[in-house]
Amino acid sequence: MKSVRVKVPASTTNLGPGFDCLGLALKLYNVVQMEKTRGRKVTIEMEGEGKDDLPRDKRNMIFPALEAVFKRVGEDPKGLRIRQINNIPLGRGLGSSAATRLAGIVGASRLLGAHLSTGEILSLATQLEGHPDNVAASLLGGLVIVANTPEGFRWVKMDFPASLKVVLVIPEVDVPTRKARDVLPRAIPIPDAVFNLSRLGIFLSSLTLKKWENLLFATEDKLHQPYREPLIPGMKQVFEAAKGAGARAVFLSGAGSGIAALVDKEEEAVAEAMREAFINKGLRSKTMLLDIDKEGTSLD
Amino acid sequence: MKSVRVKVPASTTNLGPGFDCLGLALKLYNVVQMEKTRGRKVTIEMEGEGKDDLPRDKRNMIFPALEAVFKRVGEDPKGLRIRQINNIPLGRGLGSSAATRLAGIVGASRLLGAHLSTGEILSLATQLEGHPDNVAASLLGGLVIVANTPEGFRWVKMDFPASLKVVLVIPEVDVPTRKARDVLPRAIPIPDAVFNLSRLGIFLSSLTLKKWENLLFATEDKLHQPYREPLIPGMKQVFEAAKGAGARAVFLSGAGSGIAALVDKEEEAVAEAMREAFINKGLRSKTMLLDIDKEGTSLD
Repeated sequence: MKSVRVKVPASTTNLGPGFDCLGLALKLYNVVQMEKTRGRKVTIEMEGEGKDDLPRDKRNMIFPALEAVFKRVGEDPKGLRIRQINNIPLGRGLGSSAATRLAGIVGASRLLGAHLSTGEILSLATQLEGHPDNVAASLLGGLVIVANTPEGFRWVKMDFPASLKVVLVIPEVDVPTRKARDVLPRAIPIPDAVFNLSRLGIFLSSLTLKKWENLLFATEDKLHQPYREPLIPGMKQVFEAAKGAGARAVFLSGAGSGIAALVDKEEEAVAEAMREAFINKGLRSKTMLLDIDKEGTSLD
Repeated sequence: MKSVRVKVPASTTNLGPGFDCLGLALKLYNVVQMEKTRGRKVTIEMEGEGKDDLPRDKRNMIFPALEAVFKRVGEDPKGLRIRQINNIPLGRGLGSSAATRLAGIVGASRLLGAHLSTGEILSLATQLEGHPDNVAASLLGGLVIVANTPEGFRWVKMDFPASLKVVLVIPEVDVPTRKARDVLPRAIPIPDAVFNLSRLGIFLSSLTLKKWENLLFATEDKLHQPYREPLIPGMKQVFEAAKGAGARAVFLSGAGSGIAALVDKEEEAVAEAMREAFINKGLRSKTMLLDIDKEGTSLD
């Protein structure tokens, strides 16, 4: 194998109550082409999101991912020509870093003939990422619940109803994941944990049973969203706007700043209402209507 | 309506990660017969569990349940002759108090023609009980996830796989719910909440997808079982014995002292292994193999 092309979907995670364990893959993709070259130099070309800001040297997030695979198979780093085509916005809670890391791991694994298992890929990517929810969804596609166990990661990929789509509203506010994690408390009251457990259970079972009327309250959260609200001006108003316009559910996408709504109708109205609520707080935003990706990371 | 007979199933709750929000109704019933009498006196006859210990006067748990309904419909208490036939062991985490309270509320509601809604019954019973998981399962039957919201309780009743049964092992240790609650901390680390969230999600989706191989790790818990282990001598050994004998899952039934295993084969071996593990700690126990109740509380 001399060259490879990896396509990785974006992901929205947490979906309200499923903090650090629930992710949904979206039809919005980063594509990475990798080609072996002579020598040991790695060169990076880039287009799309981050092309004016992201480093093209060893500070690029793809490097540690490549190195992890080289180390895993016991080989010295080789020369590579890499081309990153980024469609996933950065720092908006859509898993752009997870996508880049997965692309590096899956691409290098194929180029080296390493045949890493799904569990190994998930594990390597999570070590770099810190939490498994984005990488699990982007790797596997669909709605994925992932658990860390002493024997490695375990996951279930669930069917996501075809009639539900995701409206994403992405404001011009960058929320670095580290900052979004620093605002979280170390411990939470048990009733807050029960709040999330009960809603996560009702959310997942209501998706299976197509009880859309439960999704709005079942995507409420007390573990992360209340603490992150100060980082995203207008978050509360955007939530209210989405509900008022007919969204079935609304939640912070990952750690934000993107906000996601689940819709089965009124897609345009929901997107516009959310965008306007940000405008009223002085923030411009762009909106996207996305279907669910069911394939996960693919190679060709 | 002059007399009524209420049949209420036992319930096992929490099922590992679903603390205070997940319950499963079991084919083991308390039956309460209530008959209107002249005057205002309430008399209680009792047979079965607790017949030598439970009070037959106003300290009996059924009284506040009856009073709640009289108050709800704005009537003065009336004379009643009550007969309690108790098959649910007391203080073993099988919802005996929830069953008695539900019987009182549902029976009195019918006798008074009060026509309380499911949500109202759930709310009245939970006010007396303190947590909604046992009452939701015993009222509705099946596997029930229940959430407390500002607009009242919301719930989903899920299909429970017909091939799974419950082995219950009930040691001669009474764990009063209050004591089992006092040992819990007020707050838990966020990673422990994520531990339970991820397992609850995998547990529920694995039941739907019939992925039995996930149930064992997906019923692990960090919210209550580790804190309650000191109250139940041999708990850890009983868990290990159940796993070793082929149980698909094992968890504390409610707050204990009963321990429940999910089985699709080797029912006898699992029950015997769990019983022997208690014996090795000097505790006698009785075992039961129970099917899931799908009807919930019924009247005739």
